[in-house]
Amino acid sequence: MPTTLGELADRFDCEIRGDPTVVVDSVGTLSGALPTAISFLANPAYIAQLKTTGAGAVILEERHQESCPVPALVAINPYAVYARVAAFLHPTTVSADPYVHSTASIAADAKVSGSARVSAHAVVGPGAQIGESVVIGEGSVVGANVIIGSKTWLAPRVVLMAGVEIGKRCILHSGVVCGSDGFGFAHDGGLWVKVPQLGGVLIGNDVEIGANTTVDRGTIENTVIEDGVKLDNLVQIGHNVHIGAHTVMAALCGIAGSTTIGRRCMFGGAVVAVGHLKICDDAIFTFHSTILQSVTEPGTYSGALSVDKASRWRRNAARFKTLDSVTRFGQVIRENDTGD
Amino acid sequence: MPTTLGELADRFDCEIRGDPTVVVDSVGTLSGALPTAISFLANPAYIAQLKTTGAGAVILEERHQESCPVPALVAINPYAVYARVAAFLHPTTVSADPYVHSTASIAADAKVSGSARVSAHAVVGPGAQIGESVVIGEGSVVGANVIIGSKTWLAPRVVLMAGVEIGKRCILHSGVVCGSDGFGFAHDGGLWVKVPQLGGVLIGNDVEIGANTTVDRGTIENTVIEDGVKLDNLVQIGHNVHIGAHTVMAALCGIAGSTTIGRRCMFGGAVVAVGHLKICDDAIFTFHSTILQSVTEPGTYSGALSVDKASRWRRNAARFKTLDSVTRFGQVIRENDTGD
Amino acid sequence: MPTTLGELADRFDCEIRGDPTVVVDSVGTLSGALPTAISFLANPAYIAQLKTTGAGAVILEERHQESCPVPALVAINPYAVYARVAAFLHPTTVSADPYVHSTASIAADAKVSGSARVSAHAVVGPGAQIGESVVIGEGSVVGANVIIGSKTWLAPRVVLMAGVEIGKRCILHSGVVCGSDGFGFAHDGGLWVKVPQLGGVLIGNDVEIGANTTVDRGTIENTVIEDGVKLDNLVQIGHNVHIGAHTVMAALCGIAGSTTIGRRCMFGGAVVAVGHLKICDDAIFTFHSTILQSVTEPGTYSGALSVDKASRWRRNAARFKTLDSVTRFGQVIRENDTGD
Repeated sequence: MPTTLGELADRFDCEIRGDPTVVVDSVGTLSGALPTAISFLANPAYIAQLKTTGAGAVILEERHQESCPVPALVAINPYAVYARVAAFLHPTTVSADPYVHSTASIAADAKVSGSARVSAHAVVGPGAQIGESVVIGEGSVVGANVIIGSKTWLAPRVVLMAGVEIGKRCILHSGVVCGSDGFGFAHDGGLWVKVPQLGGVLIGNDVEIGANTTVDRGTIENTVIEDGVKLDNLVQIGHNVHIGAHTVMAALCGIAGSTTIGRRCMFGGAVVAVGHLKICDDAIFTFHSTILQSVTEPGTYSGALSVDKASRWRRNAARFKTLDSVTRFGQVIRENDTGD
Repeated sequence: MPTTLGELADRFDCEIRGDPTVVVDSVGTLSGALPTAISFLANPAYIAQLKTTGAGAVILEERHQESCPVPALVAINPYAVYARVAAFLHPTTVSADPYVHSTASIAADAKVSGSARVSAHAVVGPGAQIGESVVIGEGSVVGANVIIGSKTWLAPRVVLMAGVEIGKRCILHSGVVCGSDGFGFAHDGGLWVKVPQLGGVLIGNDVEIGANTTVDRGTIENTVIEDGVKLDNLVQIGHNVHIGAHTVMAALCGIAGSTTIGRRCMFGGAVVAVGHLKICDDAIFTFHSTILQSVTEPGTYSGALSVDKASRWRRNAARFKTLDSVTRFGQVIRENDTGD
Repeated sequence: MPTTLGELADRFDCEIRGDPTVVVDSVGTLSGALPTAISFLANPAYIAQLKTTGAGAVILEERHQESCPVPALVAINPYAVYARVAAFLHPTTVSADPYVHSTASIAADAKVSGSARVSAHAVVGPGAQIGESVVIGEGSVVGANVIIGSKTWLAPRVVLMAGVEIGKRCILHSGVVCGSDGFGFAHDGGLWVKVPQLGGVLIGNDVEIGANTTVDRGTIENTVIEDGVKLDNLVQIGHNVHIGAHTVMAALCGIAGSTTIGRRCMFGGAVVAVGHLKICDDAIFTFHSTILQSVTEPGTYSGALSVDKASRWRRNAARFKTLDSVTRFGQVIRENDTGD
């Protein structure tokens, strides 16, 4: 979908530096873009690449325009403008014509919007309600009484167990499982008695959930994911977890049961939290942190030790095992004294 | 399924405090239950909620009955009784009528019990044996010569590779893969030669396996999961692992190949163990522990450092990198002396 | 497929010790092998088992032949020879007759080799190209314009999103998702704007990917996995990651976006790396390491602290929280002085 820089500036409310008649038809990286592509500079670390870019145009902040050898769209938030320009130049073809594939299996009393698409080998259970322009991917399974809001997209092979409710404009990637049983067992005489998982899963609008991520149903009340939450791949959300609006979690995060997470939190990859905690709004957790206690103050929290050469790591790790006794009894000195 | 407190007391062997004719039809939380619901108190932290509960009745220990404003079932283990009451009041509808869906694909020589259900788009391979009252969920794939014991339930989209054997009354949630190849390669001249994974997977009775969990087949002999084991979501069980009866593992645990785990162990979430270890019976590992050595004594083991404010964490993590040399050479003192 | 020791020696270029007419028909462990099975000794820790083995023959190094009570194949790399012998004695039946199952759904313009197999309920999208002797497992979904090289095997329920390209002789286990969207969002006024994920996934030859592993498509350019890479189960590969040839990663590893990994690296289980790093060739990371910085020197790196008894761990972990201030201000001494 070729367009001029001028049209992009109008549509996305930017200023132009240079020729507004330049035509672009795609996006590219600063280092790899063709002359018909538009690129962006969001991270100043890439300014050297800006100076030699072969892109037809670049989206950038005003302060970087001097370094740009080609026409530019000047924006306060170039990355957000880039995101919108990319979506405009590369419209997804997913929401194409509605249809119900001949191999799909749809319960007689399910309500499927005429504008929805139900792909090959998909299953829609009894009482399910599929909204307008919803796409149900190949082999996806929508359980009994599930409700899916309009324009939500299920990739191939998503499973929504009975009673799950999902809002509008959500994206669930392949392999997502929502509404599987929470992990609840009562110990009784050396055996584990299953605690029925009777709650549901409520997912708001504009939520995106990554490939092979799992969201368990609540034990009695619901597991809740509010509007605008984004979860990456292979994330685990336990039963009765509540995730506040616009919180994001990168891949391999795990939140144990009944933990409540505030709004606008950011979880780096592989962050894990035990159950029954409360995490306040606007908390940021860096990569591979372990959250063992509630967090009441916004801010940035860390918890990972970076790798070291194995021999050095081994020595330091051995010292860690005696850290308390060393500190307590001043062994530091004695070791020094003996010249060890 | 409305019932009286008196009937529940008889059926689950509890004592009644208050009116035995009270009728309940569902379960609820102490804070959220309706007057027709029965709740429970298992954790004394919730005693304030007990005092103001709107539930019709509560299951609790004798010591808490004074604090209960409504009729009560008195039990030694209220949570276990609650689990049974909940299952009684909310019977699952899964084990409804048997059928074979018209879209299911079943090999000519597979033996499927007349009381089993084979759902839409499920596949049952040659030589497979499907026991009485088994449910095979939508899109699940049961490989050649798989054996499934009676009353076992496969959720939608489970995969059992060839030769896997599963006992009775098991529950496998969506996305589970059992019997995929173990990770075995021989290094040879800079290349990796695949080691054929020829063993199987043996799973006992009353095992539950969470969504998107993977259990690899053995290299030569079998991977074994004994009776009553419960695995949560996104758990990885490597080839030739052996898990003793009634051991439980929360989400995101990973057990590397050939590690043997005893009976009645408890693994918190995200606990990982290297291969070729032996873990004794009755070992408990708290959240996000790393197990690098065999464990020979029952007891509780920990291994995670909790998050801290990023600035403080960064300083402590930097000190960790020199912990051995600091301890060894008494740098502590010198730093103090120079007033740093 | 019974065969003589002599034939195995010829075929796999080993020397024989003992009777070349011994017949073996299968492989077994040193401790469990039947007299018609051939076993191997790769790890000297098992030499006691060698001495009492009931195997018909054993593959081993020359230095161990004295301890072997049965005929032997002598090799420099017994494990690699074992791998090849096992594949010879236990040929996989996967690559049996080609067919297209009647329930498979194949787009009119997809090109499927006549020697390929498309299993029950599989889906092949428009423009896809399926090479010779490819197997597409039950319920797998091959998106539009996907290209799959000859002899590649997709287990049941694999998903390849649009445009993914995979080389020859690859193995993708059940639940693998390749080409799902990378995790890219631009922050704008308190909301997250989705950054279109327009790149692809390029996978070389002889790559194996474990069950439920996810490989995201690139943002603009491609995510790349070079020849001979082996990924275990539940691994996450972020967008624009590049993995060099013959690198291996055990289960639960996670590599965040845009990190570049060299050739012949080895990642133990549960190793995680933040994004935008460069890892050189021949780096080895032991179990559960956290990689927060680029690695420029080959060698072995570690980053995990092993579990300890919970009471001791708790005390040491508490000391860690004050490690910097203790070190800085010599609190060690004062504590010792007060006899605390």
